[in-house]
Amino acid sequence: MDLQFVLNTFSFLVWGALVMWMCAGFTMLEAGTVRTKNASMICLKNVGIFSIAGLSFFFVGYNLMYVDVGGIVGTLQFLHGPLDAEIAVLDGATDRIGEIVTQRHATMSEWLFQMLFVATAASIVSGAILERVRLWVFWLFTFVLTAFIYPIAGAWIWGGGWLQEMGFQDFAGGTVVHVVGGSAALAGVIVAGPRRGKFRPDGTVKATPPSNVLVVTLGVLILWLGWFGFNAGSQGSLSTPQDALAMSAILVNTNLAAAGGLLAAVLISRPIFGRLGLAPSLNGALAGLVSITAGPVFVEHWWAVVLGAIAGVLCTVATWLLERLKLDDVVGAIPVHLIAGAWGTLAAAIATDAELTTQLIGVASVVAFVFTASYIVWKVVDVITGVRVSPEVEYIGQDVGELGIESHPEFVLVPEQMEPY
Amino acid sequence: MDLQFVLNTFSFLVWGALVMWMCAGFTMLEAGTVRTKNASMICLKNVGIFSIAGLSFFFVGYNLMYVDVGGIVGTLQFLHGPLDAEIAVLDGATDRIGEIVTQRHATMSEWLFQMLFVATAASIVSGAILERVRLWVFWLFTFVLTAFIYPIAGAWIWGGGWLQEMGFQDFAGGTVVHVVGGSAALAGVIVAGPRRGKFRPDGTVKATPPSNVLVVTLGVLILWLGWFGFNAGSQGSLSTPQDALAMSAILVNTNLAAAGGLLAAVLISRPIFGRLGLAPSLNGALAGLVSITAGPVFVEHWWAVVLGAIAGVLCTVATWLLERLKLDDVVGAIPVHLIAGAWGTLAAAIATDAELTTQLIGVASVVAFVFTASYIVWKVVDVITGVRVSPEVEYIGQDVGELGIESHPEFVLVPEQMEPY
Amino acid sequence: MDLQFVLNTFSFLVWGALVMWMCAGFTMLEAGTVRTKNASMICLKNVGIFSIAGLSFFFVGYNLMYVDVGGIVGTLQFLHGPLDAEIAVLDGATDRIGEIVTQRHATMSEWLFQMLFVATAASIVSGAILERVRLWVFWLFTFVLTAFIYPIAGAWIWGGGWLQEMGFQDFAGGTVVHVVGGSAALAGVIVAGPRRGKFRPDGTVKATPPSNVLVVTLGVLILWLGWFGFNAGSQGSLSTPQDALAMSAILVNTNLAAAGGLLAAVLISRPIFGRLGLAPSLNGALAGLVSITAGPVFVEHWWAVVLGAIAGVLCTVATWLLERLKLDDVVGAIPVHLIAGAWGTLAAAIATDAELTTQLIGVASVVAFVFTASYIVWKVVDVITGVRVSPEVEYIGQDVGELGIESHPEFVLVPEQMEPY
Repeated sequence: MDLQFVLNTFSFLVWGALVMWMCAGFTMLEAGTVRTKNASMICLKNVGIFSIAGLSFFFVGYNLMYVDVGGIVGTLQFLHGPLDAEIAVLDGATDRIGEIVTQRHATMSEWLFQMLFVATAASIVSGAILERVRLWVFWLFTFVLTAFIYPIAGAWIWGGGWLQEMGFQDFAGGTVVHVVGGSAALAGVIVAGPRRGKFRPDGTVKATPPSNVLVVTLGVLILWLGWFGFNAGSQGSLSTPQDALAMSAILVNTNLAAAGGLLAAVLISRPIFGRLGLAPSLNGALAGLVSITAGPVFVEHWWAVVLGAIAGVLCTVATWLLERLKLDDVVGAIPVHLIAGAWGTLAAAIATDAELTTQLIGVASVVAFVFTASYIVWKVVDVITGVRVSPEVEYIGQDVGELGIESHPEFVLVPEQMEPY
Repeated sequence: MDLQFVLNTFSFLVWGALVMWMCAGFTMLEAGTVRTKNASMICLKNVGIFSIAGLSFFFVGYNLMYVDVGGIVGTLQFLHGPLDAEIAVLDGATDRIGEIVTQRHATMSEWLFQMLFVATAASIVSGAILERVRLWVFWLFTFVLTAFIYPIAGAWIWGGGWLQEMGFQDFAGGTVVHVVGGSAALAGVIVAGPRRGKFRPDGTVKATPPSNVLVVTLGVLILWLGWFGFNAGSQGSLSTPQDALAMSAILVNTNLAAAGGLLAAVLISRPIFGRLGLAPSLNGALAGLVSITAGPVFVEHWWAVVLGAIAGVLCTVATWLLERLKLDDVVGAIPVHLIAGAWGTLAAAIATDAELTTQLIGVASVVAFVFTASYIVWKVVDVITGVRVSPEVEYIGQDVGELGIESHPEFVLVPEQMEPY
Repeated sequence: MDLQFVLNTFSFLVWGALVMWMCAGFTMLEAGTVRTKNASMICLKNVGIFSIAGLSFFFVGYNLMYVDVGGIVGTLQFLHGPLDAEIAVLDGATDRIGEIVTQRHATMSEWLFQMLFVATAASIVSGAILERVRLWVFWLFTFVLTAFIYPIAGAWIWGGGWLQEMGFQDFAGGTVVHVVGGSAALAGVIVAGPRRGKFRPDGTVKATPPSNVLVVTLGVLILWLGWFGFNAGSQGSLSTPQDALAMSAILVNTNLAAAGGLLAAVLISRPIFGRLGLAPSLNGALAGLVSITAGPVFVEHWWAVVLGAIAGVLCTVATWLLERLKLDDVVGAIPVHLIAGAWGTLAAAIATDAELTTQLIGVASVVAFVFTASYIVWKVVDVITGVRVSPEVEYIGQDVGELGIESHPEFVLVPEQMEPY
């Protein structure tokens, strides 16, 4: 029993460390995707997001999501900390160890793991509305998302709320993290509008390829590694042979789904975009990873390949479609996280014992709630202070315009061919 | 017993995560080494290699390597999955736990670890023949290597085949991974021929220094970290004090060998190349890591420094020699993996109880088999479709020529001084 | 008992792997901060530092720090290795397992963890005196620091020396690693003097912003992750529920302190520097991490936010102050490590049961000893061979001047506006 407590806690901490690493993955992916003139801002913004998410989930979010959830939402109380018995044991009261080990793991190890998830959701939103939203506005939205919106949706699914009672299944956050993040991103994309010049009056779309492909690829591989922690840690315990078996199956499926997603996107990108696409292919791998997240515990491992491959195709098609709809999602957060997350959550009904109707209700409710809440927040902020940077700052870039620095001050850049603003 | 199962499995999974990370290491090392005009192709190629290796080892390779190996090769059957008892236990049949824990670890955790090794071998080949081989051809070779060639050599050594029966020892893949990868790379280098203009008619060699030193260094440090997982995880279990002692010795030796390799290469690079060489020094660290891989479990830790230092010297000399032989190995895969891998496998006879003759037979057989098989595959493909890109694509770079993108579209590059093609 | 031995050892090894990763963090942080013309040198230097530290701590340092420390310093004897009983057990003497498990962990796993700490201290020094100190001189200093200076200070605090006897507390190296590294850096900065042109005759300071912001940010995030290993591994065991509770508290506090440090530095950088500062903000996160290191085990987690925030403010103010004092600390190693390390060590008296007077005596003694010893070493070397590169090499950069390569040979750089030398 003592040992189970130790191993379960250690599992949260070690896998959690890999989830922390995803912050670097999102930062690199985004900073390499945007034009060089905005890359420094991405760096500061993402480290800030990670910090704000940590504090707001500590001060408010966790309790809303997990403490006394009565169907809809938990308690609005400040701070979250270890149990009294845990504090006593840390102080030397070994007679109370029996009391704490029944909890199965150290309270705060699970808090840490959860906090790293909410930071991931915030990073997803970030990637969609790059290059035009003001830093402080995004940080403000991050606070609202991580302190309130995410915890409410999370309470429904993981905190004992109505969806959990209905039997909705989401193993590692296919909906809680990815559909939530993707829905908030969609609202942001709509309110903020596209980057200036992205969609030209003549109907053509300005190509905005990654400014640094190496950094983008590094970011994707960081996320791939981080996902091992994300999904394996979500097993939540490591004390029985069943746990070990499940964790094995999870990582095998996670890796196969990513491979399936990548290869499918490689194959499909040529017919869709007219050439083999690097960025769509990398997004295919991420879509595969997202798709396996809702239900990664199964033993017919070939299904993970198929699941991921379908996600890769859906993601690539959705990317094409969003451009047709004149929605400017810079890194493809909506195809990767919302579309593949929804697909994976529904598909969990195929490989696991989740029910399709319940899964459908869950996804739809979360999209509706998070999109609406986020849209209102973005809109209110837009009316009060404006979410976008000025056209001048957008033209010269947020690095010089807002931070007063350049990401690569010593490198000569190609003069940009901009539409006049 | 249950606990041993849990810990052994966890060890495979956690250390395996670090081995996955080596994919990023190879990608960065290669992408930073080539000229900027080919860097995007490297990124896509390597993520693809990792995916293809995963699928082909899942669908074919593992069974060839491990299932019913009768001396030479295992069974050609599709898919690999958990045992029936494991599936039952995951489904709740706790009465069958006794049956599975005698296996010592979850079947698929070991599969995952093995799959990450085969992906490493494929990445090794990749680094040698950069900047001139067509993407689809390389991916095709990756499939053949990871589905057939590697598993056959692996079956001899780890699958119960004839070398294993002879007493050949290879703890963590000094031969299975590095000599195999290096031999396949050598065949590829010979068939593909050097990059245009690398060896000039007047006998001089065109210098092709890394285009991005920071990224190369990052790649090497990623590999260094990944090697911790590579070697420690190869202990295969973590359930007794002996295991823990062995794992400690392994990581201490791994790190000391890398340090020895680096410093030796730093010292030797000046007399050999006429100046302190950054790239040879970094390769020295990798050679040290490769050299310790075949036999890292010993307690005279100073020997690891010597072993690694000799590897660093051999690698540097071999790099110089390959250029004399007009073999164009872009990242130095042959010196780092084939030469240092062979050295380390033979040297295992010094620090561990391996026998020199057996080690010699093993290395020679693997080189002969893998080189020949790879040569045939490369040659057949070359005759049918040609392994090289056209001179035009080689001149403008594979990024624009094959992918239609640039790795750094906003940065102004120095016009290349090319030999006319 | 056997199991405790396994788990404690595994904890050192897994968390140690993350500490190894900090080498990449320092390398990226430094290489991205300096001007492009010096970046390759940083890469080679840092990989060399890591190697030299490993060897010198193996051959000399560890014994000085831990073996028979009589108040001041341990034994000057060569090499460090496993116990005889451990060697016997590895050789199969299972009857001696009882003997080794009373040691609680494999001897060499703790050695590895300690070695990674000393490498960190050396990396700290490196960051301060970039762009003007000769490679071989710095490597020589690294040897002296890691073989002698660090082990002596460490013996006082962790080896059973006089400070440990007084009750001085330093959980994970707030003083042993960060104050030591920062003090040695300060001595180096004074002896080496500022970069040419940094402080102009008219009293103005030449701005030297990071040349590659993405790489700097990546470096900081690598360090952030590495710190999880640094602090969690310092718990030193993982065998009881108390250990697991402590490790949870440690990681929660570590992450909150970093977040507090970052956000405080974001807020304070504008009034101090006149604009939102990216580099100061990232350093604020590092200062938060440093500040929690001396005493991370407490359960009033909100205090970690405050502690880190104060560190972020102190670090930012100290950065401003150092420039006024014409001390040229390139990455801000002194504010981040010396100032925040001292603050954290003193503040340990607030959150843990350390005594303020003792903490003060400890920090002051270590600063006095390490600064003096380092100053003498730097000065002696300076008199004998000179620590600085020639003005010509400083002008053209160490990459071309000392290594004969460029970090980005294909990218066109902005001609530098230098003061004539």
